[in-house]
Amino acid sequence: MSAKALLFDVFGTCVDWFGSVSSTLSKLADELNPDTDINAITLAWRQAYFDGMSEVRNGNQPWRRVDEIHREALDRLLLEHGLDQLSEPQRIQLNLVWHRLAPWPDTRKGLAMLRKQSYVATLSNGNLDLLMDLQRFGKLQWDNLFCSDLFQHFKPDPETYLGACRLMNLPPEQVMMVASHRSDLAAAESFGLRSAFVRRPTEFGNIIPADSAIQGDFDYVADDFIDLAQQLEQTT
Amino acid sequence: MSAKALLFDVFGTCVDWFGSVSSTLSKLADELNPDTDINAITLAWRQAYFDGMSEVRNGNQPWRRVDEIHREALDRLLLEHGLDQLSEPQRIQLNLVWHRLAPWPDTRKGLAMLRKQSYVATLSNGNLDLLMDLQRFGKLQWDNLFCSDLFQHFKPDPETYLGACRLMNLPPEQVMMVASHRSDLAAAESFGLRSAFVRRPTEFGNIIPADSAIQGDFDYVADDFIDLAQQLEQTT
Repeated sequence: MSAKALLFDVFGTCVDWFGSVSSTLSKLADELNPDTDINAITLAWRQAYFDGMSEVRNGNQPWRRVDEIHREALDRLLLEHGLDQLSEPQRIQLNLVWHRLAPWPDTRKGLAMLRKQSYVATLSNGNLDLLMDLQRFGKLQWDNLFCSDLFQHFKPDPETYLGACRLMNLPPEQVMMVASHRSDLAAAESFGLRSAFVRRPTEFGNIIPADSAIQGDFDYVADDFIDLAQQLEQTT
Repeated sequence: MSAKALLFDVFGTCVDWFGSVSSTLSKLADELNPDTDINAITLAWRQAYFDGMSEVRNGNQPWRRVDEIHREALDRLLLEHGLDQLSEPQRIQLNLVWHRLAPWPDTRKGLAMLRKQSYVATLSNGNLDLLMDLQRFGKLQWDNLFCSDLFQHFKPDPETYLGACRLMNLPPEQVMMVASHRSDLAAAESFGLRSAFVRRPTEFGNIIPADSAIQGDFDYVADDFIDLAQQLEQTT
């Protein structure tokens, strides 16, 4: 079951977007409107990202970078949550919170372990400069950053998974998708890739239950990246 | 004259292809045919790469990865130079010499200095897995690997330079091309990018003179990456 390359979902799988976004919003709200429902605005911002991608995937919107989807949603949410006094420079800065998301505690070490066994690359719906910034912010070393903008398609469109395989010159069966989301892995499997589920139970704070899986649901099911590296070492 | 991102040509500019390829061929010839003209076969292999890309750029050939261009040329050159006894596994291995080219002595340190000032990324005609391997082999840390296969165009086609700018969401005037080849920089300038020439006088061993430039020919002219980092530091 060895894979020559691992492709990683990023938001939720590698980085704790909920923690980073909610703590940034929290600091802002303390100054501007202490009654702000931080959890609600954080989750609504994330939901708007999914809705924005769906509009593109359905053909209702032309291609858009995730930064743009985030920004449009931010303006609406600031208005709805009584934070509309934010200036344009403050909004630009706040939108960049998605470029500075903290890795989970195991991410850096686990990724370095996995990189000794195979190529490690992102396969994210984020735009490229967002991923470049996350790589720097988290002090991560990827072999490559695959992102939606390269293909002008969002996951789970086949162009993303198969495009990354093609660019690495690897058949899908030699590539494994790593994600904390069942739908991402199910799509990857349907296009011939292998699958590794990594549990991130606090992805949505503790507000919404995160996806879960048990052994057998996917090729691998791991508690974190270090666990995944150890499991892969034992089977290769 | 600050640039938010630097794009690097790779073969010759970052790595010593002549030294790595000729020393690998030399070891092989010692065993198989000590009379082999190592310089001639090394230069001919490099020339075949340019010819192969021209065929694609002229529309005479469909899109091809550089690995394929290298391999086709290798088979012809082995025959011409009395080394045709090489087995298929040996040929596969030999062709991968282009994935294991030594960086110049200043490359790693200079790149790390430059990365503190701006994004640093490749913009190479090599295929992606070749660049991933060179990154690992040279222990280099790039922000991203831009390569011909992303755009299905070779430099100096505009799709490469402008494609990298677009994916980083930067206007060309905020991006600087770094190369040891005048033609690469002239093309980049014609599409609005800035230019930095780095002298690599022994790019072709000492068999063929390498490109040279004097101050004023380009936005920057430097002796190596460390010199370039120091010059950029002083002007930003």
